Amino acid sequence: MKKQKVSSAVIRRLPRYYRHLNDLHQAGVERISSNALGNSLGLTASQIRQDLSCFGEFGQQGYGYNVSTLRDEVADILGMNRGHTAVILGVGNLGRALMENFHFDRSGVALAAAFDVAPEVVGRQVSGIPVYHVDQLEEYLSRQPASIGVLTVPGRVAPGIANRLVQAGVKGIWNFTNIELSLDAPDVVVEDVHFADSLLALSYMISEAP
Amino acid sequence: MKKQKVSSAVIRRLPRYYRHLNDLHQAGVERISSNALGNSLGLTASQIRQDLSCFGEFGQQGYGYNVSTLRDEVADILGMNRGHTAVILGVGNLGRALMENFHFDRSGVALAAAFDVAPEVVGRQVSGIPVYHVDQLEEYLSRQPASIGVLTVPGRVAPGIANRLVQAGVKGIWNFTNIELSLDAPDVVVEDVHFADSLLALSYMISEAP
Repeated sequence: MKKQKVSSAVIRRLPRYYRHLNDLHQAGVERISSNALGNSLGLTASQIRQDLSCFGEFGQQGYGYNVSTLRDEVADILGMNRGHTAVILGVGNLGRALMENFHFDRSGVALAAAFDVAPEVVGRQVSGIPVYHVDQLEEYLSRQPASIGVLTVPGRVAPGIANRLVQAGVKGIWNFTNIELSLDAPDVVVEDVHFADSLLALSYMISEAP
Repeated sequence: MKKQKVSSAVIRRLPRYYRHLNDLHQAGVERISSNALGNSLGLTASQIRQDLSCFGEFGQQGYGYNVSTLRDEVADILGMNRGHTAVILGVGNLGRALMENFHFDRSGVALAAAFDVAPEVVGRQVSGIPVYHVDQLEEYLSRQPASIGVLTVPGRVAPGIANRLVQAGVKGIWNFTNIELSLDAPDVVVEDVHFADSLLALSYMISEAP
């Protein structure tokens, strides 16, 4: 099937669909109407049907959606079965928080290695993940390619490290540095986790709340 | 002026406007057309004019926008001058990362105190912020109210702590726990920083990249 161009709003909703369907599945729910799915996600049924129609035909008139089937299909759309692997750059507080507390595997991503420069962490393991010196980045990735680079380094070194990751073949950068990366690589995607934007949105919503 | 209901997409774009206008101002740019502003943000000029029209009239036909004026107006819309104060719950890796590396003040928020249960951190300061035992939360907030609670506790205690924050009068929760909070307080807003949703969006974009 030739897919249409998918808007970024739809892309942002897909992970929520996945998460919610997974919760429903684990709660033993076997099928759900688009109305009920919409209600619990704060969307209309037609919005959900329209979002999913970007990717093919799902569900059945009068029956709704089979929860586990739709969950698996959304997982597939999200690329969760593509065997993505990640390396993390920067084992400071934030890098360590992700390594110790974030379940990469639940998003279909295998975290393979970490890189830093600090002698007290290089050569050790954090949550079972080996930490190498950043000088070994290119050699490591030439042996064990990764599709995702997680950027938790200080902002001042972010552009340089990002470019090294791109040169070494990563396809996407998960950027926690609050630095806007301008990469000379149109095929590499950057996903920014922008804490300040999020806090400002909260500030707006508080200020506008009744 | 009676404001119209502002869509969440507009709310998400406002912090980017602010950030970009602030960068322009610091680079010495005094005025900018909506075309140029749109180009650098990947939006159309009419999109920008439409977004801003939710809040009043800005800019001038044939002149464009005065950068510092518009920046200040967007800051005002975002509630950056409302004197928001925050407390942070949970001084683990993530809490510590925010305390040490995130500039709350640049978003117009004063981080006043932190709370945890671990003896090795309670009674100390992290980046100049005092850390109290979580048992002192209500007493502290009764003396020094805060509008924002930053939630970086383990997921299993998140709902309980969130409800205590709400009872103690916070207006918004910045939720890093990956737990969907259901608060019995319609006037309290929750902003989720959902790492898994972000990683899944990146996984999708990588899988779809040319």
